[in-house]
Amino acid sequence: MGKKEKNLAELAEYLGAELVGDANHSINGIADLQTAAASQLAFINQASYAQYLPETSAGAVILSSEFADQFNGNKLIVNDAYLAYAKVSALFEALSVLPTGAHPSAVIAASARVHPSAAIGANCVVGENAHIGADVKLYPGVSIGDRATIGEKTLLHPNVVIYHSVEIGKDCIIHSGTVIGSDGFGFAPVRGGWEKIHQLGAVVIGDNVEIGSNTSIDRGALGNTIIGDNVIIDNLVHIAHNVKIGKGSAIAGCVGIAGSATLGEGCTVAGAVAINGHITIANNSHFHGGTIVTKGNTEPGVFASAPPQQDVKKWRRNSVRYTQLDDMSGRIRQLEKQIQALLDQNQSKDS
Amino acid sequence: MGKKEKNLAELAEYLGAELVGDANHSINGIADLQTAAASQLAFINQASYAQYLPETSAGAVILSSEFADQFNGNKLIVNDAYLAYAKVSALFEALSVLPTGAHPSAVIAASARVHPSAAIGANCVVGENAHIGADVKLYPGVSIGDRATIGEKTLLHPNVVIYHSVEIGKDCIIHSGTVIGSDGFGFAPVRGGWEKIHQLGAVVIGDNVEIGSNTSIDRGALGNTIIGDNVIIDNLVHIAHNVKIGKGSAIAGCVGIAGSATLGEGCTVAGAVAINGHITIANNSHFHGGTIVTKGNTEPGVFASAPPQQDVKKWRRNSVRYTQLDDMSGRIRQLEKQIQALLDQNQSKDS
Amino acid sequence: MGKKEKNLAELAEYLGAELVGDANHSINGIADLQTAAASQLAFINQASYAQYLPETSAGAVILSSEFADQFNGNKLIVNDAYLAYAKVSALFEALSVLPTGAHPSAVIAASARVHPSAAIGANCVVGENAHIGADVKLYPGVSIGDRATIGEKTLLHPNVVIYHSVEIGKDCIIHSGTVIGSDGFGFAPVRGGWEKIHQLGAVVIGDNVEIGSNTSIDRGALGNTIIGDNVIIDNLVHIAHNVKIGKGSAIAGCVGIAGSATLGEGCTVAGAVAINGHITIANNSHFHGGTIVTKGNTEPGVFASAPPQQDVKKWRRNSVRYTQLDDMSGRIRQLEKQIQALLDQNQSKDS
Repeated sequence: MGKKEKNLAELAEYLGAELVGDANHSINGIADLQTAAASQLAFINQASYAQYLPETSAGAVILSSEFADQFNGNKLIVNDAYLAYAKVSALFEALSVLPTGAHPSAVIAASARVHPSAAIGANCVVGENAHIGADVKLYPGVSIGDRATIGEKTLLHPNVVIYHSVEIGKDCIIHSGTVIGSDGFGFAPVRGGWEKIHQLGAVVIGDNVEIGSNTSIDRGALGNTIIGDNVIIDNLVHIAHNVKIGKGSAIAGCVGIAGSATLGEGCTVAGAVAINGHITIANNSHFHGGTIVTKGNTEPGVFASAPPQQDVKKWRRNSVRYTQLDDMSGRIRQLEKQIQALLDQNQSKDS
Repeated sequence: MGKKEKNLAELAEYLGAELVGDANHSINGIADLQTAAASQLAFINQASYAQYLPETSAGAVILSSEFADQFNGNKLIVNDAYLAYAKVSALFEALSVLPTGAHPSAVIAASARVHPSAAIGANCVVGENAHIGADVKLYPGVSIGDRATIGEKTLLHPNVVIYHSVEIGKDCIIHSGTVIGSDGFGFAPVRGGWEKIHQLGAVVIGDNVEIGSNTSIDRGALGNTIIGDNVIIDNLVHIAHNVKIGKGSAIAGCVGIAGSATLGEGCTVAGAVAINGHITIANNSHFHGGTIVTKGNTEPGVFASAPPQQDVKKWRRNSVRYTQLDDMSGRIRQLEKQIQALLDQNQSKDS
Repeated sequence: MGKKEKNLAELAEYLGAELVGDANHSINGIADLQTAAASQLAFINQASYAQYLPETSAGAVILSSEFADQFNGNKLIVNDAYLAYAKVSALFEALSVLPTGAHPSAVIAASARVHPSAAIGANCVVGENAHIGADVKLYPGVSIGDRATIGEKTLLHPNVVIYHSVEIGKDCIIHSGTVIGSDGFGFAPVRGGWEKIHQLGAVVIGDNVEIGSNTSIDRGALGNTIIGDNVIIDNLVHIAHNVKIGKGSAIAGCVGIAGSATLGEGCTVAGAVAINGHITIANNSHFHGGTIVTKGNTEPGVFASAPPQQDVKKWRRNSVRYTQLDDMSGRIRQLEKQIQALLDQNQSKDS
């Protein structure tokens, strides 16, 4: 896709890699070993792919010394081929163009402070006293509320909405349709309905955070919802008011985290997990996909709850039994007593 | 956050509270007992927080008579401290500014009727014959389809989309990215694909409804999707075509409700619940988080289905057994027969 | 809602139906048998609705010959009444008006190719070298990235976001808030965080695809995410990078499909299903609502995993037992051994 070109000498220098092969060979993209053309780079980080090395048409392969002997073409030898692939991927990305400065159709409050190196796309709106840092990119249709701050080099894709007083750090990426700072779901019950608790806190997002598309992060009721540095969050994730997510944690798609839950640092939460409110989850906890997390934990661990998929006929029969589990357990207990009585009886007869 | 100030006399009058303390003490916000400053109000509604009363720095505390003796500072004595907190929260909110009238960049159809007291933000679009009521606030980027009606004092946050012919009541709040009136998922099967059933109904939303961010409510196929008065709906909720939600019900984040389901009044649906289509749920039913609701009910009750979270090793072993439950049940039945036979045998021997 | 009128002769011709009754009777909409007025069409496709035939006020009824004798009013006799209803629904839809040509507020790159028959709504943005086909409709606030292509007659509802280089086929409908081409969730782990893997692939969507509101489809890491022809996708669906969805499959609301999963052709995935990454699902597979799909399959089948809903007290007791299932299984095994020993003992005594 990208029209950017680098030769292997440049790539080796960029990656700190040892180059074996033609330093002038030109690369304009990345592909997997099976499909890469001579103008493309490939990489290998698992032994199961070594079978593709002899026949790949890739212009060069990123690999660790472990695989170096198995490939005779151009190679970039590194310690961690997957990390090197990640780094080199940045060179060939071709996002939509967004010129520095504000598009004439952008509506920017007079009191907003916008760094001259920022790029503000068509139809963006920047509210009163908002602060847009250096090298920030706001793609078209982004809405920034009053007093919000966007840290330097942060990139917001089209139609992201940032509510009032939200703070976003540096080097963040937020994808389209994501909403940061909507009201937490707070209401006092009254006869026949609900009295709204206006949400007076904000959202504070650290540096180097990436958030996918159509995700919602609510502002705090009192105090803030907090997302630590280096957190990564996928699409369609719901983060409720006053949640705290520790540094470096990863949250996959379709996860929901209820109000005032605290997730530790270095956690991984797989897709479609639901985390209960007002619980605390220890650093380095890991949750399998679809887990319903009802209680917190104090030690790192790996947790799951999803029941196994089954053929629908078998599932129907087993589901009926699931509703009888406590009864089944009682029947086992009863059987054990009866057996024991019989065994005791026999023993007394035998003695 | 807010720069609004009220003194305790004003707050007591607003709440109908009994004030004990300095009527002139000025308050500019709310915080919890542990962190409140002298310029802030706190509240207590649970005995477990009473430990913080002696040392709080709050400028005043909202409390019921039950706690009045435990606090010597300024206090606002009310019947329901949580409700009073909700009411007072409205005073200190500081939403983004939105001036009355239409921003020059808004695109409003000539046939639309817009009340002069309404505020239409930058880049909003209002369709043909739409009706925008008194004191309505449309934040930037809101899209209102043809013939849609927005009731008085309703507030739509940035980038909300309201499709054609949708009706929204008075005093509603809808958060960013939410879509009301997209097509229901209706198709007739044809060889190799699907024939679209165009969705000819609309969505009718009552008064005093709040809807979170990135929620989707589909229009009816024939007839309308209906959300009753005083309903509250959280973020990332999917409400399919022809669903009916009774007055005062509450739907938490990540819930999905399939087509033509009817949810009664006064229900609470916790996060990540999925409700099957074409079922009817009784008034005052309550569902725990993660419940898969496959059938309706006729009496109020509390329902759940989520399996418990477990350490992953234990979960793997138990999951295998889950697929054998019907077999296990049969084996218990067999054991019971065998035991009974042995007992009968022993009895006949003994007699 | 629609003000469009057709007489029964026109409808019979459109549907290829046999008309029995008044050819000049005028119809302006569709409703169900119970509520249809004389100006409306109704249909019947299930015997359970035949009870409403004698008393319906519908101006005409679409039905198959099976039901023709049970109704004396105007009737349109067809082979498949549900399909005929789907077809006729298209005649009475009244979407928001969108004139051909570009609204003055739309921002269209000079290098973009926009067919003169396309309609580009207010505040749309069309990027560099994008291609907008004949009769395309972009409702207000749609954002089209650089080099993206939109096939002829495709309709994008307000505030849809299409990222750079995404390809969308002909005759597609995409609902509001949906994002196509956001970055896949790809990161290489580094100490304390994550190194972003820039997502260099795109999304390729076939012809005649409909996608609901607030859905997210990520671009591929290397290579593309692919949605086949005639696929239908509901609201709030998450489709991760490099997923492939076969022709004619249907994905209901709140489904999540993790990275590099391949779903076959003709599959149906009910609401709130979560599908694991890197698995392959056979053509014509069907999944019940709430299934957590952890492994692929090679033969068509019907699968489920959701546990049954229960009264909360019963659920609590059964949940405890669920965590003891492997132990229960072991106890049954032990009982079976003990019983067998007793039976053997009795037999040897008897012999």
